[in-house]
Amino acid sequence: MTATDLPGALSRLRAAAPLVHNITNQVVANFTANALLAIGASPAMVQAEEEVEAFVVQAAALVVNIGTLLAPQRRAMQLAARRAGEAGIPWVLDPVAAGATAFRRDTAHSLLALRPRVLRGNASEILSLLGEEGGGRGVDSGAAPERARDAARILARQHGLVVAVTGATDYVTDGERMVALENGHPMLTRVTGTGCTATALVGAFLGAGLPPLDAAVAGLAALGVAAEQAAEGTAGPGSFQVALLDRLHGLDGATLAARARLR
Amino acid sequence: MTATDLPGALSRLRAAAPLVHNITNQVVANFTANALLAIGASPAMVQAEEEVEAFVVQAAALVVNIGTLLAPQRRAMQLAARRAGEAGIPWVLDPVAAGATAFRRDTAHSLLALRPRVLRGNASEILSLLGEEGGGRGVDSGAAPERARDAARILARQHGLVVAVTGATDYVTDGERMVALENGHPMLTRVTGTGCTATALVGAFLGAGLPPLDAAVAGLAALGVAAEQAAEGTAGPGSFQVALLDRLHGLDGATLAARARLR
Amino acid sequence: MTATDLPGALSRLRAAAPLVHNITNQVVANFTANALLAIGASPAMVQAEEEVEAFVVQAAALVVNIGTLLAPQRRAMQLAARRAGEAGIPWVLDPVAAGATAFRRDTAHSLLALRPRVLRGNASEILSLLGEEGGGRGVDSGAAPERARDAARILARQHGLVVAVTGATDYVTDGERMVALENGHPMLTRVTGTGCTATALVGAFLGAGLPPLDAAVAGLAALGVAAEQAAEGTAGPGSFQVALLDRLHGLDGATLAARARLR
Repeated sequence: MTATDLPGALSRLRAAAPLVHNITNQVVANFTANALLAIGASPAMVQAEEEVEAFVVQAAALVVNIGTLLAPQRRAMQLAARRAGEAGIPWVLDPVAAGATAFRRDTAHSLLALRPRVLRGNASEILSLLGEEGGGRGVDSGAAPERARDAARILARQHGLVVAVTGATDYVTDGERMVALENGHPMLTRVTGTGCTATALVGAFLGAGLPPLDAAVAGLAALGVAAEQAAEGTAGPGSFQVALLDRLHGLDGATLAARARLR
Repeated sequence: MTATDLPGALSRLRAAAPLVHNITNQVVANFTANALLAIGASPAMVQAEEEVEAFVVQAAALVVNIGTLLAPQRRAMQLAARRAGEAGIPWVLDPVAAGATAFRRDTAHSLLALRPRVLRGNASEILSLLGEEGGGRGVDSGAAPERARDAARILARQHGLVVAVTGATDYVTDGERMVALENGHPMLTRVTGTGCTATALVGAFLGAGLPPLDAAVAGLAALGVAAEQAAEGTAGPGSFQVALLDRLHGLDGATLAARARLR
Repeated sequence: MTATDLPGALSRLRAAAPLVHNITNQVVANFTANALLAIGASPAMVQAEEEVEAFVVQAAALVVNIGTLLAPQRRAMQLAARRAGEAGIPWVLDPVAAGATAFRRDTAHSLLALRPRVLRGNASEILSLLGEEGGGRGVDSGAAPERARDAARILARQHGLVVAVTGATDYVTDGERMVALENGHPMLTRVTGTGCTATALVGAFLGAGLPPLDAAVAGLAALGVAAEQAAEGTAGPGSFQVALLDRLHGLDGATLAARARLR
């Protein structure tokens, strides 16, 4: 995956308009759905234990996010993830604040064991999944992504998946290859759920049939470039959030390729 | 109900400022509440089994939306709907993605049996309630509203209620009369929960005392006209969503009557 | 606390960037998190019974809001509030629609008994907690804040806490001192969850180490002044809500001191 592959990835997503099944948190449900619609996917939020297995097999990809985890939702996540695995439906895990409590840590590990194709977190979350000290400030990341880069590589090898660590620089690795992305804008840290949005966009590209590493890079690049465009001329986080949806909607492949800073 | 009746309906809603009790989904709760406030109603989101019966009798109307259905919420919906029926409080049902799983289909049918005054769905949802194939792509509608128009008429007669099928053209029927609305804008399909918003606005007009067919037509016309205004000069779905609330707030009866395309 | 103390309070908040643990309602979760980020705090929404005690001790303050109360969430609130009290972590209670049902009233009283540092409600909610008739229109306030002012003083003395009653004029009292605030804008009543936002901002100032009366005054003043700025040049409640986040983010101490109308 290089910058020149991004226009094709975006076209493929928009042609497929993949149904993305989200089991996500209450804070970001609306924004996640709108971001998925804006990029060209078709979101659905379905979370009851009674129906997630029947629903996920209709989807092109599954997004699991433990942000406002409750015990029944945890069971639904495990059911959906297991069924997705059986049916060959790719899924991505967002282990929000995984290191903050035993409940989150245990849940994140139980989900990791069900083999997501991609794991997307901030440095603290990724470090905590490896058992390292990373911070305990909820959803904030106290640790530098650079330190988490090595943890990401180890996790990727241990679990046979792609790990994306996001921060000022994003790192995406399958345990062998390592892609660094330099896009984005500090305003992303002043709006809630932009990390969750990154995860959902990765899910959309997975749903469009991209391999996990490519899907992760494309999702993060799309968000980063749209964020840079959104930050131009906006007055604060409220208008930035609105402009981010506009920019995801208006994103074109040529701009994405020209502005993406991958290495 | 013709276009010339719309200013009176809107005035009546704003004078009544009806308390609208919503048992709705997590994705749209915020936007629904803001849309109800913008049009001039007073929203409340109350969903615990322990209190919905005590609350609904204080309300002017009830809105039931199964978008992110959970089993305890289903029980709350059934309790509230039954109590609303007993107390003569009108209510509207939004059977989100009713055809996607047995859990949703069964829930939708159990709620239909409790006799809402209005049922509002997209073509897929309405068709699936009649047992026809309509699509299974979650909240998206894969079926043409025209095909669902006949299904709506049958459902309306079977259950003795008003059915509103929304899409590029909306159809509202009580089983005898059929009103078609041509308002709206494609951008409505790029923002999550605009169908849910339509349902909530129908609830607001029911709460203002309008008969079900009139309430359904007025709610859909208000949303459609506000959406057309909102789409003028907005750059994408983020700013469209913001402008939609501004336009619902600023909507005046004369504009509504002039722009509504009913037949 | 006078207007000249406000710049110092705001600086202290931004330097501390306190982790604010919210157990709040589904309608406002996103906006609350964004408002806390905008003012300079670090929000986390954590609500499972299994983890709230482990999480709250890592936070600088706790915000408890019963807006879309469910029984498991009530237990989580009680666990978190008790643990916060034991650990000396300040917390604020928002008794949304406390008078509307027995379930809410009982919950609000059980939480009051756990000794929040601040109670923030509208006139109806505060009156209902004293057992007086105040209205039953859900989250709306039917009663004048002036009448609730005296109820606030009584409640503050009974429970040994600070009570903030918000409305066209806000009143903050510890049972002895009484501060009136004249900031704000009518548009605040056309956006859902602005009262909840006030409560969350009070939580942020508590988390920055301010005494309860000062934290309550600072939180309400910040929201009121930002709302006045946001209302300038916005076309309706949609754009007002966006501008409110921009203004909370851009708020500076000098403007806050100059525009705050305390007495």
